[in-house]
Amino acid sequence: MNTIGKIFTFTSFGESHGKAIGGIIDGCPPGIVIDEGYIQSELNRRRPGQSSISTPRKEDDKVEFLSGIFEGRSAGTPIAFVIWNTNQHSDDYNHLKDVYRPSHADYTYQQKYGIRDHRGGGRSSARETAGRVVAGAIAKLVLKESGVSIHAYTSQVGHIAMTQDVEDIDLSQIESNAIRCPQSDVAEKMIRYIEELKAEGDSIGGVISCVATGIPTGWGEPVFDKLQARLAQAMLSINAAHGFDYGKGFGGVSLKGSEMNDAFMSTDGKISTKTNHSGGIQGGISNGGDIFFRVLFKPVASISKKQQSVDIHSNNVELEVRGRHDPCVLGRAAPVVEAMTAITLLDLYLHSKTYR
Amino acid sequence: MNTIGKIFTFTSFGESHGKAIGGIIDGCPPGIVIDEGYIQSELNRRRPGQSSISTPRKEDDKVEFLSGIFEGRSAGTPIAFVIWNTNQHSDDYNHLKDVYRPSHADYTYQQKYGIRDHRGGGRSSARETAGRVVAGAIAKLVLKESGVSIHAYTSQVGHIAMTQDVEDIDLSQIESNAIRCPQSDVAEKMIRYIEELKAEGDSIGGVISCVATGIPTGWGEPVFDKLQARLAQAMLSINAAHGFDYGKGFGGVSLKGSEMNDAFMSTDGKISTKTNHSGGIQGGISNGGDIFFRVLFKPVASISKKQQSVDIHSNNVELEVRGRHDPCVLGRAAPVVEAMTAITLLDLYLHSKTYR
Amino acid sequence: MNTIGKIFTFTSFGESHGKAIGGIIDGCPPGIVIDEGYIQSELNRRRPGQSSISTPRKEDDKVEFLSGIFEGRSAGTPIAFVIWNTNQHSDDYNHLKDVYRPSHADYTYQQKYGIRDHRGGGRSSARETAGRVVAGAIAKLVLKESGVSIHAYTSQVGHIAMTQDVEDIDLSQIESNAIRCPQSDVAEKMIRYIEELKAEGDSIGGVISCVATGIPTGWGEPVFDKLQARLAQAMLSINAAHGFDYGKGFGGVSLKGSEMNDAFMSTDGKISTKTNHSGGIQGGISNGGDIFFRVLFKPVASISKKQQSVDIHSNNVELEVRGRHDPCVLGRAAPVVEAMTAITLLDLYLHSKTYR
Amino acid sequence: MNTIGKIFTFTSFGESHGKAIGGIIDGCPPGIVIDEGYIQSELNRRRPGQSSISTPRKEDDKVEFLSGIFEGRSAGTPIAFVIWNTNQHSDDYNHLKDVYRPSHADYTYQQKYGIRDHRGGGRSSARETAGRVVAGAIAKLVLKESGVSIHAYTSQVGHIAMTQDVEDIDLSQIESNAIRCPQSDVAEKMIRYIEELKAEGDSIGGVISCVATGIPTGWGEPVFDKLQARLAQAMLSINAAHGFDYGKGFGGVSLKGSEMNDAFMSTDGKISTKTNHSGGIQGGISNGGDIFFRVLFKPVASISKKQQSVDIHSNNVELEVRGRHDPCVLGRAAPVVEAMTAITLLDLYLHSKTYR
Repeated sequence: MNTIGKIFTFTSFGESHGKAIGGIIDGCPPGIVIDEGYIQSELNRRRPGQSSISTPRKEDDKVEFLSGIFEGRSAGTPIAFVIWNTNQHSDDYNHLKDVYRPSHADYTYQQKYGIRDHRGGGRSSARETAGRVVAGAIAKLVLKESGVSIHAYTSQVGHIAMTQDVEDIDLSQIESNAIRCPQSDVAEKMIRYIEELKAEGDSIGGVISCVATGIPTGWGEPVFDKLQARLAQAMLSINAAHGFDYGKGFGGVSLKGSEMNDAFMSTDGKISTKTNHSGGIQGGISNGGDIFFRVLFKPVASISKKQQSVDIHSNNVELEVRGRHDPCVLGRAAPVVEAMTAITLLDLYLHSKTYR
Repeated sequence: MNTIGKIFTFTSFGESHGKAIGGIIDGCPPGIVIDEGYIQSELNRRRPGQSSISTPRKEDDKVEFLSGIFEGRSAGTPIAFVIWNTNQHSDDYNHLKDVYRPSHADYTYQQKYGIRDHRGGGRSSARETAGRVVAGAIAKLVLKESGVSIHAYTSQVGHIAMTQDVEDIDLSQIESNAIRCPQSDVAEKMIRYIEELKAEGDSIGGVISCVATGIPTGWGEPVFDKLQARLAQAMLSINAAHGFDYGKGFGGVSLKGSEMNDAFMSTDGKISTKTNHSGGIQGGISNGGDIFFRVLFKPVASISKKQQSVDIHSNNVELEVRGRHDPCVLGRAAPVVEAMTAITLLDLYLHSKTYR
Repeated sequence: MNTIGKIFTFTSFGESHGKAIGGIIDGCPPGIVIDEGYIQSELNRRRPGQSSISTPRKEDDKVEFLSGIFEGRSAGTPIAFVIWNTNQHSDDYNHLKDVYRPSHADYTYQQKYGIRDHRGGGRSSARETAGRVVAGAIAKLVLKESGVSIHAYTSQVGHIAMTQDVEDIDLSQIESNAIRCPQSDVAEKMIRYIEELKAEGDSIGGVISCVATGIPTGWGEPVFDKLQARLAQAMLSINAAHGFDYGKGFGGVSLKGSEMNDAFMSTDGKISTKTNHSGGIQGGISNGGDIFFRVLFKPVASISKKQQSVDIHSNNVELEVRGRHDPCVLGRAAPVVEAMTAITLLDLYLHSKTYR
Repeated sequence: MNTIGKIFTFTSFGESHGKAIGGIIDGCPPGIVIDEGYIQSELNRRRPGQSSISTPRKEDDKVEFLSGIFEGRSAGTPIAFVIWNTNQHSDDYNHLKDVYRPSHADYTYQQKYGIRDHRGGGRSSARETAGRVVAGAIAKLVLKESGVSIHAYTSQVGHIAMTQDVEDIDLSQIESNAIRCPQSDVAEKMIRYIEELKAEGDSIGGVISCVATGIPTGWGEPVFDKLQARLAQAMLSINAAHGFDYGKGFGGVSLKGSEMNDAFMSTDGKISTKTNHSGGIQGGISNGGDIFFRVLFKPVASISKKQQSVDIHSNNVELEVRGRHDPCVLGRAAPVVEAMTAITLLDLYLHSKTYR
């Protein structure tokens, strides 16, 4: 369904070629200064058409708030917003009306609902994530008051991976390039590789890493709403996300318990861990360390190479997908990962307040 | 919190050294034959003390149903059950009362709740998962009527990984060894490695793979309750789970779109895909193919090697954890992965019925 | 919070003097013909300015759908809509900025949220119910396909009550007068009484009765989501609603068990009850009879008579509320009662499908 | 379904003639002293066999806690409990196996679930409410720390109603008689009337009134989880409950706005209302005054008088219900009303903490 969260909730709506996308944020604490300029700037980070490696589609993606804000502050009531669809080329999709694109949601939507908006993927379009960025920006504004900050970056594109450890990364460099990789030499290689694939009409996936700092102990609700469980749901709900791990993750599968365990230490009466192989979470609850996790994204399914497929009458067909597509979504996915992180963390933060 | 699901729900309770663990299953369709022998056999698969590589703790783990079953069938009312705690050696944990074990939930529970049952990990003990196996067994009984079957197996222990592809695996071999790896030569290596680590007082993690067959198109509720999102939450809610991926997963990160996409084909009017790199899910909805995913487990945090830690008064201490622990939980985790899969799939199956 | 329902859900937003009100409907079965003309006609029934006994405020209340509808049918995706606020006289409320109106939500909103949109009651305005009427109209369209129809009417205004029994009522007469009372002589008395009170600057409440027909056995989810429990929540969530009863209700408090019980009878193998004192519900589940219940509404709190109150600085003040208010909301509340009934019934209907 | 609440939740299980009834309380704040003696005393207030006007069934109703309590305090983890069924005369119900009792849930359960535990009403038995009393007692223990107290009493039995206003009632007299009516002369009349009906084999209903004091402003979550909406759901979920109103209620239907409105006044800077016709709630949020509401109960459906009914083969039959039944449940329903009030208020109280 289209609502996420229990206390701070976000309900999303919209198809890519309908009138608008948007959503309703409920449970936002009242009195928060809603900085619309900041929210728009977050939305701009996700916007298509930013560089040579993203789709040439121009979308304005202007957010318009309809409710829940009074004299610049959150009123404690639902915050509804819309982003109007203004640059839709629906005719680009006429040739797809009767065909199921491979590894798209065309077929499953048709099977599930018996009806499907074929224009631009309809509801299954990644355009839907723009609404999440708005909700996430508001969650970030609330979390910032508690000293929490969240940064996501591209750590791998295809076979090209960052070599820096998370501890050594200069987060301020994330916005310095189109792929949002803070290690500039690797970023260059990534971009070059993506441009090559674009020329071939192909696409590539990769990994977004995310680090959240400033989180106190106590966020996360065992046993089913553990912090990592809720993050995993949030991340895997993003279009094209195919995997999630936290702390050492799959890369640490060979470590023994004696190597993986994070020893505690006490310094001037303050408890912390010597290492952070657990990614800031123990038993489903934040332990005061940095939260660290990764999200795997598959390559964009829209490629211009010829593909074998079927049409709605179950005929085998050859398909060439036209339209304006990203060869790699990683750079634009980073703000979405941040947004879903913020939405999840804020919900668990508010939940933790019910215990005190 | 301790309830999972929206229509078919499971609420879990219990600490490892309290009177009992158990739970309440709500929303189970009525009229299902509740085969208690089968449920107990599932529980036995998770039970400790089964082999040389698991803890020598003997726990009877007999399930006792209290409600919701009438003349051998589900009545449509809540099914409550208990598993009594009978073999608890609570005194084994006296030396841990004032110490936080590294990479356990001791510290975070104390910080979150201000109170903590230190005996056997209390609520954070993996013993809690026994209740999930009971709920999962009931979900499996319901799903079986629709032709769904679910098999989880150990595909990797530390650096030792299966070499067979998922398509080539003989699922009937899963139960043939203690680590539940269907490739017998690899299983032997895994077991030998675990015995070595046990002798050293160390532990190891690995990967459980899971395949679910017989699922029709249409299960999964975009955009936030996508099938993979709900599976990810369910899996990451299991103790020690650190990662999740589906289809090609992290191992396929280098694949281009043209390699990753699953081409459609039509055979005698029936649509399927030539490959299944997507693990049976497109756009958050089952596509009729086999569901395939992996779950990463970190090494058991309880090791008998000496570790540095702190006590509740913030003093630095050296710690030797006594007690009866598994050097590797993978074999016993497989039934838990199956159970959480069944619980998740059934909930989404029932949800899909509301559309017809 | 601002979402109601579990499977068919409605999330409401909007303040009376903000940009718009509206909402998101999720879980609507796909393929339903969304008859926008019908939906607008339902909205028109609730619209102010319809007659001498309602507020002279003119509000266009045009619904604009933003998503979830494709080629005239529900797509199974969220249906978002807005109703723009176009006739707001926000300056009318300037004199209320610093004063708490008696028996309004001004004081409690200020206390709860620490911030409050004073213009037209903000979020607590009955204008919010327009969105419910839209969601209810869509629920009615779905229910109509199953043969369910819902009619609410004014059965009492102040001391003036209908004398007809529910069985004798001609439901087709409901729309024949401004107060929506199907007994025309009583309706006339009600209207005359309301006009008198309007002249005095006073207001009056009363009772809406509602009957839903065509409901099969089996809707309602004991023990906490019993049909009557969910109806009660839905009704008491309407502005100014102060009471709910079903079947014989408070009026039957003197009946003995032998008088109250609905004897069963079998006619040609079909089971029904001789009487329907239970209002079509037994044990929280529909029994195949007509659902019948009543909703009490208090008098409109906005009166133009002088009242004693306090301001935000805790000074005692005298208050004269200006603005354009209804002396009696009953006629306009009937469509809202119908809408909330439809939303509730559809959610429980869809839930009942998960058992089959 | 069988879970109520969002943050403080209670999940109920059990049939009257199964092994046990009970439940799981989740979200209870940690560190609360769980006074088991007090909880048992609350349960004793609901227990059958207390007096000449209740059923002669003896049920021990001893609560046994299974989890969530450590060293006498709530641990922040789920609190599970059972009440074993020990005095069940299941054979008393053999003659009802094939017959639907009028105004019972036999028929609707059979229709909904296709299966039904006929013994003692199974899941639809009022015995299920014993579990609610346990959960309510724990909620009361939490609320007591915030100065909240809750008292329910019988204000009407059939045509016999209290004449005292709520303001004049001596709440300490509630427990002084079997019907739990604090006006002793009226209580005597009620009891005499019930004894007469018992002799006739008949039954009677009535009204429970409830007052909750010490509640600060700010509890209640508009627009759908308004305080009165959540109370209404909770109350109508109780067996045999047929109505709910708050403040002046149905009795005040003739009041004009000028009579109904609660004028504000400020005394030494403290704001309160001169009257409390609104029952302590404005706009769905507590206003600092006493919460006051009423719950209507229909007469017990089990009467020993001969009744017309049908059997499961759709034959018309004459029925005489044997067994041990209450002629009037009001006295025993009062603790259940208190319990559901406490469960509801605590959930909303905890929710209100997320704003601060």
